Amino acid sequence: MRNEKSLKQLEKLGKETLEMINKRKEPFVELPIRSLSNTFFDEQSKTIKMGNKTSKRNFLNTAHTRKYTQTIAIASEIKKIIKEDATISIRDLYYALKHTLKGSKENLFENQGESDPLIEDIEASLGLLREELNLAASTKGVIAGNLTIKDGKDVIDLGRMGSGGWGVPSNVEPENIEIKNLDAEFVLFIEKDAVWRRFNEDQFWKKHKCIIITGKGQASRAERRLTQRFNKEFKLPVYSLMDADPWGYYIYSVIKRGSISLSYSEAKLATPETKYIGLTISDIDKYKIPENVFMKLNDEDNKRLKDIKNYPWFKNKAWQNELTLMKTRNCKLELEALSRKGIRFITEEYLPDKIKNKDFLP
Amino acid sequence: MRNEKSLKQLEKLGKETLEMINKRKEPFVELPIRSLSNTFFDEQSKTIKMGNKTSKRNFLNTAHTRKYTQTIAIASEIKKIIKEDATISIRDLYYALKHTLKGSKENLFENQGESDPLIEDIEASLGLLREELNLAASTKGVIAGNLTIKDGKDVIDLGRMGSGGWGVPSNVEPENIEIKNLDAEFVLFIEKDAVWRRFNEDQFWKKHKCIIITGKGQASRAERRLTQRFNKEFKLPVYSLMDADPWGYYIYSVIKRGSISLSYSEAKLATPETKYIGLTISDIDKYKIPENVFMKLNDEDNKRLKDIKNYPWFKNKAWQNELTLMKTRNCKLELEALSRKGIRFITEEYLPDKIKNKDFLP
Repeated sequence: MRNEKSLKQLEKLGKETLEMINKRKEPFVELPIRSLSNTFFDEQSKTIKMGNKTSKRNFLNTAHTRKYTQTIAIASEIKKIIKEDATISIRDLYYALKHTLKGSKENLFENQGESDPLIEDIEASLGLLREELNLAASTKGVIAGNLTIKDGKDVIDLGRMGSGGWGVPSNVEPENIEIKNLDAEFVLFIEKDAVWRRFNEDQFWKKHKCIIITGKGQASRAERRLTQRFNKEFKLPVYSLMDADPWGYYIYSVIKRGSISLSYSEAKLATPETKYIGLTISDIDKYKIPENVFMKLNDEDNKRLKDIKNYPWFKNKAWQNELTLMKTRNCKLELEALSRKGIRFITEEYLPDKIKNKDFLP
Repeated sequence: MRNEKSLKQLEKLGKETLEMINKRKEPFVELPIRSLSNTFFDEQSKTIKMGNKTSKRNFLNTAHTRKYTQTIAIASEIKKIIKEDATISIRDLYYALKHTLKGSKENLFENQGESDPLIEDIEASLGLLREELNLAASTKGVIAGNLTIKDGKDVIDLGRMGSGGWGVPSNVEPENIEIKNLDAEFVLFIEKDAVWRRFNEDQFWKKHKCIIITGKGQASRAERRLTQRFNKEFKLPVYSLMDADPWGYYIYSVIKRGSISLSYSEAKLATPETKYIGLTISDIDKYKIPENVFMKLNDEDNKRLKDIKNYPWFKNKAWQNELTLMKTRNCKLELEALSRKGIRFITEEYLPDKIKNKDFLP
């Protein structure tokens, strides 16, 4: 059975609750506050983190009764799922629990919007990833490289995945996914699927001894968690390859520092040692990229650019110069724009050059 | 080199063009009309098809000059890509060609909205899939089952993909993807990623000798093409497992009959022999599904329901009854709602029961 540790924590919660009832004390749970006000950038771990403010949810406080009942019901259902050794989605969990309470007309839940935040409460209070509670999040990413994955009974050679790559599963915890025979010198985290396919078709990972992974846009938890494992367990440097636009920079920021909404899990998801390898606005002059492949910034870009400029981890000279340059030149650039210089320019010239010159942003 | 046949067709187009110029005739291309008015349901192939109306695009007609030039430029670039044996995205193609015409201030393309439809024109006029022109579309799907895939030099055992599955690549043509050692009796096409993961975790494909594939929502071209290959080349029946809502029924409709926007390719993408295994509104009574997991139809559902009811291939008694039932009960049902009956109800009771009783919709 997986996640026995989680099971024990849930059983402890149950026992404590029962004890309160037996002692005729009012049952309650103490939960960390998951709001912006309790989120900060931790200088030590170099990631976004949740603070230590908590609040109590009391059964006998009528303003809390519904939520308290739902919280305990969710904890109890998760315990059941772990015992069955099954993995389910948070939507399954909602439906599994959706019923009318005996002797009343009240439904335990009206919609999934009620159950999802309580799952996050439980994750945050136990300090566990939802994957450690046998809950699966959706994933989009694919991966290839010189390594073997042991997933249950299957041994999967990620160096022989053809043009498709291996679909990154939801749960990539060491208990589920063993990383073996790794023969790579760095991880290349690519924003876009189409660009990943270029690197895979050109067998970049073989020639340059690396692992290529994409989140197909904003990265899912699993792609981020796996990247952190490569970095922490195998000391591999991680390089991010994104569009030169505020959205690309934001995706990079989440990989490196984490996100506010998942602050309570970022210690296990973010990879602070990630470096930004490209694309940048400075590349335009460096690589003589013709002007007619640029795009102008739109309102949303300008807003996000302003936000990013104020993130503490972008407050260094290199990034501030880059962000100012984007603003003054009023342009952004997609990775595919490099195709103007030749289809394989990105894999045969641009990236090898960047790596050779250690031309990264922090 | 792959797709030599396509190369020859492109070279023929080039030679014909050159001949017209040498003979001082006005150069033109003749293209099929890709509009609703030239789309029909073909009773013979049982799929949506493009009709045989065509129109001419003339170089010397000033209303056509820009588009004609762009069309020839795209055909020429695709020829180059095939010769390089590379696969690129349609965005790469746009950027590769984006430049200012010599001696003018005119850009060949202003945006990708100009190049994409012309690629479709070329696909339609040559009767080739874009994958046969070395163009890659994005994919989301994953697959698992008792079969081996030969993809380039890699031999991939889809029965040993762990919890992740194999990421379906963009190009699944026989020239790229060889299907070997297939030991399966049917294909189960699952709408949702989370449900696919339930079937994979429970090793349904092993116990029931089948292939499980998901498109993670609306299916991409590659998942549909691969499904057609299993059906045509290996005579495997295909069963669709979707939400009981108008969107799920529409996704099924596209897998089975094709879509209007891709009518010119549907002969190679649609699988008319697909059957609908579930979920249906009739299942509610059959499997005693509690009422509080239903959802009401919204405006968009009602609109789509009305549209679907008029599709010729839903004009049979079984489907009309089902669609009327949805309307009168004013409810829809997600696959995850079956979790109310137990996490593994769907894999251990519902689906085996449906298969045993051949309880399908046409």
